[in-house]
Amino acid sequence: MRILGIDPGYAIVGYGLIEYEKGKMRPLDYGTVETSAKLSTTERLVLIEEQMGKLLKDFAPNEIAVEELFFNTNITTGIKVAQARGVILLTCAKLGVKLFEYTPLQIKSTLTGNGTAAKTQVQFMVRQLLRLKDTPKPDDAADALAAAICHALSAQGIKRGLK
Amino acid sequence: MRILGIDPGYAIVGYGLIEYEKGKMRPLDYGTVETSAKLSTTERLVLIEEQMGKLLKDFAPNEIAVEELFFNTNITTGIKVAQARGVILLTCAKLGVKLFEYTPLQIKSTLTGNGTAAKTQVQFMVRQLLRLKDTPKPDDAADALAAAICHALSAQGIKRGLK
Repeated sequence: MRILGIDPGYAIVGYGLIEYEKGKMRPLDYGTVETSAKLSTTERLVLIEEQMGKLLKDFAPNEIAVEELFFNTNITTGIKVAQARGVILLTCAKLGVKLFEYTPLQIKSTLTGNGTAAKTQVQFMVRQLLRLKDTPKPDDAADALAAAICHALSAQGIKRGLK
Repeated sequence: MRILGIDPGYAIVGYGLIEYEKGKMRPLDYGTVETSAKLSTTERLVLIEEQMGKLLKDFAPNEIAVEELFFNTNITTGIKVAQARGVILLTCAKLGVKLFEYTPLQIKSTLTGNGTAAKTQVQFMVRQLLRLKDTPKPDDAADALAAAICHALSAQGIKRGLK
């Protein structure tokens, strides 16, 4: 099964594709879709739809795991990210791929056993589980891989009747 | 010139179409696009795209005025509304219609001269300027007409060199 993890964003959308079979996972691809601040809001949303649509067609994932938004202080950035996330969800839905959402807490907890784990701990587990030498860069790509891994491990849990 | 005003939402999107020529405006159509809470997030976003796409084709507006989001306390609702707004902006952008954004303060201020005017004052001005007997219902449709009127009056201001 091919699982695509997505870390939604406005300036940077992270993606990470993994293959997951019989409890084993391996990385297939990861990276980012970026939009320039020189473009207008609508130009950036159109670009995100185009680029994500291309990725989805190329990758043909069986399931998609998208990180849920968590806002702390910067509500203005938050609105822009949420708008972009709406476009990303729409693009996934129109291709008919099954979509699952995970909170940052769920992802941290599933990968490290600790819902308040530091970013470096999550990145360490991404490296370990995918047998990567280095932490994927930028953080957005690593976060997307973490979402995909979280979905793989959660699905495994469901099958085993652990959840 | 046909101006479409949009009050973005997730459960309810308000729209209001006006014609504006030589300083005179008249209402052409207004109403709402609604999505049921029984549907999933992605189903609702797909529905909003479909319905708004249809409206835009039917109405063929020359320009679109979209209200900007203003969040106070309910951040969870806020994220959902922002996601829907992203889908609405994308739909407008893909049809190539010129899009303008106005804050609630700009709309209130342009229609009533007071940026902190009560909703009833704004609705009163919508009725007056469009020569309507009753306030358009629901509020979302009235808000969308207010956005369209705000754009008409602002554009007039620009032409006259007031801004």
